[in-house]
Amino acid sequence: MAGSRFAYVRDFELPDPALPDVYLVVRIDGKGFHKFSAAHNFAKPNDAAALELMNCAARQVCSELRGDVVMAFGESDEYSFLLKKDCQLYRRRKTKITTHIVSLFTSSYVFSWPSYFPQTRLLQPPSFDGRLVEYPTAKHIRDYFAWRQADTHVNNLYNTTFWACVLRGGVTEREAHERLRGTVSAQKNEMLFSEFGINYEREEAMFRKGTTLVWTQEEANETTTQPAEDVHDGLVSSPKGSQQNKRKVKMKRRLRTLHVDIIGDAFWLEGTAALPATA
Amino acid sequence: MAGSRFAYVRDFELPDPALPDVYLVVRIDGKGFHKFSAAHNFAKPNDAAALELMNCAARQVCSELRGDVVMAFGESDEYSFLLKKDCQLYRRRKTKITTHIVSLFTSSYVFSWPSYFPQTRLLQPPSFDGRLVEYPTAKHIRDYFAWRQADTHVNNLYNTTFWACVLRGGVTEREAHERLRGTVSAQKNEMLFSEFGINYEREEAMFRKGTTLVWTQEEANETTTQPAEDVHDGLVSSPKGSQQNKRKVKMKRRLRTLHVDIIGDAFWLEGTAALPATA
Amino acid sequence: MAGSRFAYVRDFELPDPALPDVYLVVRIDGKGFHKFSAAHNFAKPNDAAALELMNCAARQVCSELRGDVVMAFGESDEYSFLLKKDCQLYRRRKTKITTHIVSLFTSSYVFSWPSYFPQTRLLQPPSFDGRLVEYPTAKHIRDYFAWRQADTHVNNLYNTTFWACVLRGGVTEREAHERLRGTVSAQKNEMLFSEFGINYEREEAMFRKGTTLVWTQEEANETTTQPAEDVHDGLVSSPKGSQQNKRKVKMKRRLRTLHVDIIGDAFWLEGTAALPATA
Amino acid sequence: MAGSRFAYVRDFELPDPALPDVYLVVRIDGKGFHKFSAAHNFAKPNDAAALELMNCAARQVCSELRGDVVMAFGESDEYSFLLKKDCQLYRRRKTKITTHIVSLFTSSYVFSWPSYFPQTRLLQPPSFDGRLVEYPTAKHIRDYFAWRQADTHVNNLYNTTFWACVLRGGVTEREAHERLRGTVSAQKNEMLFSEFGINYEREEAMFRKGTTLVWTQEEANETTTQPAEDVHDGLVSSPKGSQQNKRKVKMKRRLRTLHVDIIGDAFWLEGTAALPATA
Repeated sequence: MAGSRFAYVRDFELPDPALPDVYLVVRIDGKGFHKFSAAHNFAKPNDAAALELMNCAARQVCSELRGDVVMAFGESDEYSFLLKKDCQLYRRRKTKITTHIVSLFTSSYVFSWPSYFPQTRLLQPPSFDGRLVEYPTAKHIRDYFAWRQADTHVNNLYNTTFWACVLRGGVTEREAHERLRGTVSAQKNEMLFSEFGINYEREEAMFRKGTTLVWTQEEANETTTQPAEDVHDGLVSSPKGSQQNKRKVKMKRRLRTLHVDIIGDAFWLEGTAALPATA
Repeated sequence: MAGSRFAYVRDFELPDPALPDVYLVVRIDGKGFHKFSAAHNFAKPNDAAALELMNCAARQVCSELRGDVVMAFGESDEYSFLLKKDCQLYRRRKTKITTHIVSLFTSSYVFSWPSYFPQTRLLQPPSFDGRLVEYPTAKHIRDYFAWRQADTHVNNLYNTTFWACVLRGGVTEREAHERLRGTVSAQKNEMLFSEFGINYEREEAMFRKGTTLVWTQEEANETTTQPAEDVHDGLVSSPKGSQQNKRKVKMKRRLRTLHVDIIGDAFWLEGTAALPATA
Repeated sequence: MAGSRFAYVRDFELPDPALPDVYLVVRIDGKGFHKFSAAHNFAKPNDAAALELMNCAARQVCSELRGDVVMAFGESDEYSFLLKKDCQLYRRRKTKITTHIVSLFTSSYVFSWPSYFPQTRLLQPPSFDGRLVEYPTAKHIRDYFAWRQADTHVNNLYNTTFWACVLRGGVTEREAHERLRGTVSAQKNEMLFSEFGINYEREEAMFRKGTTLVWTQEEANETTTQPAEDVHDGLVSSPKGSQQNKRKVKMKRRLRTLHVDIIGDAFWLEGTAALPATA
Repeated sequence: MAGSRFAYVRDFELPDPALPDVYLVVRIDGKGFHKFSAAHNFAKPNDAAALELMNCAARQVCSELRGDVVMAFGESDEYSFLLKKDCQLYRRRKTKITTHIVSLFTSSYVFSWPSYFPQTRLLQPPSFDGRLVEYPTAKHIRDYFAWRQADTHVNNLYNTTFWACVLRGGVTEREAHERLRGTVSAQKNEMLFSEFGINYEREEAMFRKGTTLVWTQEEANETTTQPAEDVHDGLVSSPKGSQQNKRKVKMKRRLRTLHVDIIGDAFWLEGTAALPATA
């Protein structure tokens, strides 16, 4: 066949499988988003539409890779996707998994731009880079997401105070940095409240807590008009003593968009957002 | 600092540098493009607008990474990018390089879709996956691109004959596959000519040869109205004996879009498209 | 400095750190030991001296790397070493860890040969190869060692029956293989008992169960004459109600050589051999 | 089969192939040889017997892996082995190659100890660690070996002067370090000559140049009594004009032990030691 004498070059493609039975986290980051957000006049300190566009793109990734991506967390221009331990996507080839997620996210971001910025033309194609990290246990996964949310808190409290000083306090950006240098959280909270009448705890939860996407199981309500992301059959037991009364109910998997604390135990141990897959 | 007790999770991000002083090739592939092209009614066997959109996205990658990406080759829903041996992009971290290129390509593809398909709404966000391969020498690079172009030839000759049978010959797709099973190139050429009056060698070069993007150096013509991709200063000697007469000329690097043979020596050894960086 | 223009070649030494917080298992295998054991007239089916020499070399590895190697298991010409999850040896560089263990084992094997084979001159330097495997959880570690010990059982039962047929039954090796083809364990046990009067369960435990090396903590008995591998101080509580009576006792870590079942729970959950480090 | 439910643990053994068609260099280093050489009273600044034992162990590696290891260079307690570009040993699995070489070297070192130190009992098993580095071109290989030999020169000139000061000049080790701090080569050469009557260039070549092992092709002399490492058939042309007179001669590959300059061109371009495999 034509070309067969060149086919040896394929041998240079080396395998890169992830370790079996570990959690995989793919984190993507906006490339040059400082400039990108300036060019598109994103609001300061947070642009709700821009964050919702990020969430929309992330939901697209979760839906496309349902069954593999079990959770996601986003803040600013970054998003982290958690793949279950026994994920077999691309036979766990790391580069394939990572590039597919980065590409799908990017594609959805550009695709959905007009829905979130109907008045603002996209001036140039944005890009994201990505990385894949392996984590052995559920403990590491909790700490990973806690790390990201703690980062959200630190950055957002700083930025909220900084931009309050600049936009409302009328100081220069340089002066604002100077004022904040070395301050701790309590001082920033106090500045916000006493100088600008801002109760930080009442700021929008999406800004303070970032966005968490999780799958939940719900009994399908046949009269609902909201489309479920995923529907499958399940067995639900009736009350004790009536073993024969088991009935088949449609269960729906829904992808929830939450802005809640994921550092404490509550998110992980109870309620609708519990993650059995990570136990 | 808040979150510092979680920061240990960063230690799980392991290094993945490429070997120094080897060529890097990043190849991207459309994910599920059979379905994607059907959904958007791409012409068979080749859709010129779809290929030109791929070329446009690839040009965006080359321009963004000028100085690092020295050549690219595309066919169908794939594109290969050659990075120079001493590329220091992202300190040669493989995943960063690969994801950035995949993301930028994807982003540009969606961004530029309306320019190439003004009448066709993009129905869903397309995605691409990518891989990075290391090649030690210029010989491997030549053979790599020869391998891809030989693939272009084999596939395009098959597809051209197949769709001639179906679209003009009125046979079913199954029947067309049957007829072509086991035929060699000469037989397909003969079928095309005798049955459908098609001289394969006169088919569009972009279909037969794929698309090659290369940077060329040209003396800037101040009166040109065509914008150069890149302009820099260079010294050009005047004729011997007039050392003092050196004059400064503007040199332009231009990104050329070619549809030529890259298997033979000519492309590599002579002419405007020569690649000094791969010598 | 002389040589500095060549020093760039160091940049080709790429990092290879193990993932943090996973167990590391280094397994070594004799290279060409079929021929080596024939050349040195090792007894069939098992040569006790040869196995004890393996154990001796493995003990040397465990002692040298005490604090990092928490357990080892050997059979035939292979040995597996378990490194604790938080092992920081060589900053977890995989090749360094693996080569050091392989080298130390090899060195000790040759060094100690005369002690186990005083009458047999070592004819040529034996060699071993090694590999390093990462395991995320204690469950994987138990299954790893169960896998090796199950292998010991299968191989040893086969070899014991095979050599009984050849050495006592007077059949050729080919005939012995034929007889055993397709037999299950019960049939081999029965053959051994009815034809050769061998009760397999009474064969030497080292042959049937392989050898397990573990560290145990014991209260140092000052009058003991047996040298401890390691001695350190620890606090041992006196009975309830006498908090003030805590006394300081010398604790000794001893490296035990066991030939016991490590597939069942007992070894892992109770007794002196329990492995707190793997919990 | 017994154990099959545990066999999944094998899936954690990940592939680690070297890139095709690049040179592989395995370098081994003595572990704790400062202490080891003190314990065995190695002569200062160089112990000829200790170096010859290193060379002996390296020759054993070269002979065992003839056809794959094409050259080696050693100094002090380190040795580098060059494997040819198309080496297929262990299907180029990096850890297998590295551990086998480290193990064989170690084994030979201990095995041959009594031949080089007949009066000195080996007190403890020495060990070596190893690393494998990939180099794309012959240029890198020349620079690699130049780097090692430049290191030999710098270290040996320092050590020769240092120990001359201590052993003949009667100063303490601390004082000797002080005297040498900041001196360049010319100053050390001058000190050696003027204070101790030592002409550095006449010091033993093995100390100054390290040891290079290479394979050479020689016409077999049937009457030779020296055993060849390797003998094979080859065709040698007779003088021009007598094409029909080609005769078959036995060719011997011999492993030469050299102490020559390998930084300059001569070693690489001419003479018996030329390395066609690295061209």
